[in-house]
Amino acid sequence: MSSNLVDRRNRVFGKGAPLFYREPLHIVKGEGTYLFDQDGRRYVDMYNNVPCVGHAHPRIVEAIAKQQSTLNVHSRYLHEDILELAERLTGLHKEGMDAAIFSCTGTEANEVALRLVRACTGKRGIICSDAAYHGNSEAVGKLTHVRRKESDMGSDVQCFPYPQMFRPVADVSTDSLCDAYLNGVKEAIDRLNRAGHGFAGLLICSLFANEGLPDIPEGFMSRAAKIVREAGGMVISDEVQSGYCRSGKWWGYEISDFEPDVVVTGKPMGAGVPLAATVSKRAFVETFRQTGYFNTFASSPLQAAVGLAVIDIIEEENLAKNASMVGSYLKSELKSYQKQHEIMGDVRGHGLFIAIDCIKANSNREPDREIAVRIVEGLKERGFLTGVAGSEGNVVKIRPPLVFGQQDAENFLEGFKDCLRRLDGE
Amino acid sequence: MSSNLVDRRNRVFGKGAPLFYREPLHIVKGEGTYLFDQDGRRYVDMYNNVPCVGHAHPRIVEAIAKQQSTLNVHSRYLHEDILELAERLTGLHKEGMDAAIFSCTGTEANEVALRLVRACTGKRGIICSDAAYHGNSEAVGKLTHVRRKESDMGSDVQCFPYPQMFRPVADVSTDSLCDAYLNGVKEAIDRLNRAGHGFAGLLICSLFANEGLPDIPEGFMSRAAKIVREAGGMVISDEVQSGYCRSGKWWGYEISDFEPDVVVTGKPMGAGVPLAATVSKRAFVETFRQTGYFNTFASSPLQAAVGLAVIDIIEEENLAKNASMVGSYLKSELKSYQKQHEIMGDVRGHGLFIAIDCIKANSNREPDREIAVRIVEGLKERGFLTGVAGSEGNVVKIRPPLVFGQQDAENFLEGFKDCLRRLDGE
Repeated sequence: MSSNLVDRRNRVFGKGAPLFYREPLHIVKGEGTYLFDQDGRRYVDMYNNVPCVGHAHPRIVEAIAKQQSTLNVHSRYLHEDILELAERLTGLHKEGMDAAIFSCTGTEANEVALRLVRACTGKRGIICSDAAYHGNSEAVGKLTHVRRKESDMGSDVQCFPYPQMFRPVADVSTDSLCDAYLNGVKEAIDRLNRAGHGFAGLLICSLFANEGLPDIPEGFMSRAAKIVREAGGMVISDEVQSGYCRSGKWWGYEISDFEPDVVVTGKPMGAGVPLAATVSKRAFVETFRQTGYFNTFASSPLQAAVGLAVIDIIEEENLAKNASMVGSYLKSELKSYQKQHEIMGDVRGHGLFIAIDCIKANSNREPDREIAVRIVEGLKERGFLTGVAGSEGNVVKIRPPLVFGQQDAENFLEGFKDCLRRLDGE
Repeated sequence: MSSNLVDRRNRVFGKGAPLFYREPLHIVKGEGTYLFDQDGRRYVDMYNNVPCVGHAHPRIVEAIAKQQSTLNVHSRYLHEDILELAERLTGLHKEGMDAAIFSCTGTEANEVALRLVRACTGKRGIICSDAAYHGNSEAVGKLTHVRRKESDMGSDVQCFPYPQMFRPVADVSTDSLCDAYLNGVKEAIDRLNRAGHGFAGLLICSLFANEGLPDIPEGFMSRAAKIVREAGGMVISDEVQSGYCRSGKWWGYEISDFEPDVVVTGKPMGAGVPLAATVSKRAFVETFRQTGYFNTFASSPLQAAVGLAVIDIIEEENLAKNASMVGSYLKSELKSYQKQHEIMGDVRGHGLFIAIDCIKANSNREPDREIAVRIVEGLKERGFLTGVAGSEGNVVKIRPPLVFGQQDAENFLEGFKDCLRRLDGE
């Protein structure tokens, strides 16, 4: 049946539309932390952050159904709930981050952020990390894995080596390492200025999620933000993956300890209804508004209803605390396995966002993509859905819905140990 | 109350977020063709094409609620309904348009279309009309009202004067006029080639909706498509506004009589759930897939459920026929008022997509933006919601949900006549 579906999919989507796993899963139902395939087999979802309050949450279903049966129309009429959502969202940041622009996807929200900082600074140049991913449009896609492309001074996007402790750029003390990475930031800004693009800002995932959730030198982000501002640029924190209590705090920038000028949110905001936002100071947002932006589906009553329900559930079900507690337990247990399993080169992350950096045994921390894939496939066989990430594709990415509980964690750890034993035995 | 909401909105959205009408409407409920404000006042919706099957259609609500309570997750697992939606959608085009790429907004679907034709041709240059609007991202936004910008040979987007009969570029026979507009197309292609961008394709709204729904010289589009293909380019039909039975036919390109290589759809597809698509030949789509496109919210079970429900309702409720019949009646009645009302310079359109081109009385068809705005405001006072459009902003745009009925049309015509009488009396 699944192979028939794959054929049918290849016909109507064209070959090359991405699918997970050697044998793709045919998922037909979700509930809480669980996904079920067509044969009724249950999987623990440890990958999906969009259904952050759990699959098929009844309050989400109710909010969506109620709103769609009442009103769902564009935002050039007044509607109260979307203002409430904007107020709730801005209220989750420090004072002064007081206005929001809604859109439908993280890509669109990052497009808005880039346009905003370019409008506010009057400059074009953007810097990002060398293993970033911020979206799929042409303008935002220019920030994808920049280092893989030829270094091009003509480009108005320049990158710097992403900060990390595990495979540091230089064999130096932590302080000097921070300086080394900050030099990379300065150099990227310099390249933009020398090439005449001017410097508009930094776009960064606050937890460097696509880079593989590296531990970074203390103080790096706050010092990088200072460098950016002193060079006349603005700091955009992409919280599409790292925000919404993923880390145990509302925002990844609280973990990495810096203050952004612009915050971008997406995936978990709408529980699967496309919803994204760009938040900044009102004065900056008003400068952006002069560009005449309008988005038909954005700021809709439906987005408002589901967006408010998600925030309500996160607060009422204490999901930040859950992410923090269960995530800490999971990470410390995983760390304790490292001694017995050399392939677990590093265990990193915050809250319910954990990365296992897989390395070749007995090697100099050489990334092992194949082992990561085998772990992800082995976990799937055991009923746990994870994914592969990181700049080298050698990182097992654990990012379950925020309702992932203690018992789920314990069950996973048993499955994970079994998976490792099997790999050891081969 | 509304003024309080405006203040609150200006605070949290920033000033400059677009609102309709001098006194913005505070809409709280929708049902079928009707919208209701906070005081319970009923308006006939003659503007909104997103709720094409009518506001708050119970089958849409049911489809959304059922799917959201079952499963809503990304597309890297197999799911059957999204394949069915792709099959239904491609089946609505001629044979050979057999594969689809889903996204969330018309902007995203046009981004995909541009990337597709650029990947397939290996060239960058795009041509469009000089009063086009295709979306809000940086790449697609480059096609917005190109003529307002300085003519720039450095740009990989070049425009041609949009075809029209009402204010033709030259005082010549219709045949010669068609040639004159086709020369504009050729010149735009030539500029791209001379500047070294090469030519990838034409992106056009099949009914020139933002241009003001002009009547165009017969044969223009089929001949333009031939010129584009002979120059090595591909033809993209933007059906975001003109598709989904708006014209009385499924696609605007059936009205304008040409065969596109790529079709873009959006607004009405998802009844307010963000849903858009790019359809083309499988071989072209597979070339595009090599660029590694992925969109978290797109191709989701929720998009599938609502997308299928919309197509079902259009077919079962015969909405194409309704659009054709009610639209024809409305247009011919409006045309009959022209003799008495010189300001109604032209009445154009197809199906339930009608434009009234307002001109200064006793003038040489000089566009009168102020009159258009006064008509739209006057209609609002009388309980009918329309909008202003066109390259000069002087066109009253009528684009109701496809369920807009004969009685709605008759009521509107009474209101419209009353509105004209009032304008005449002033």
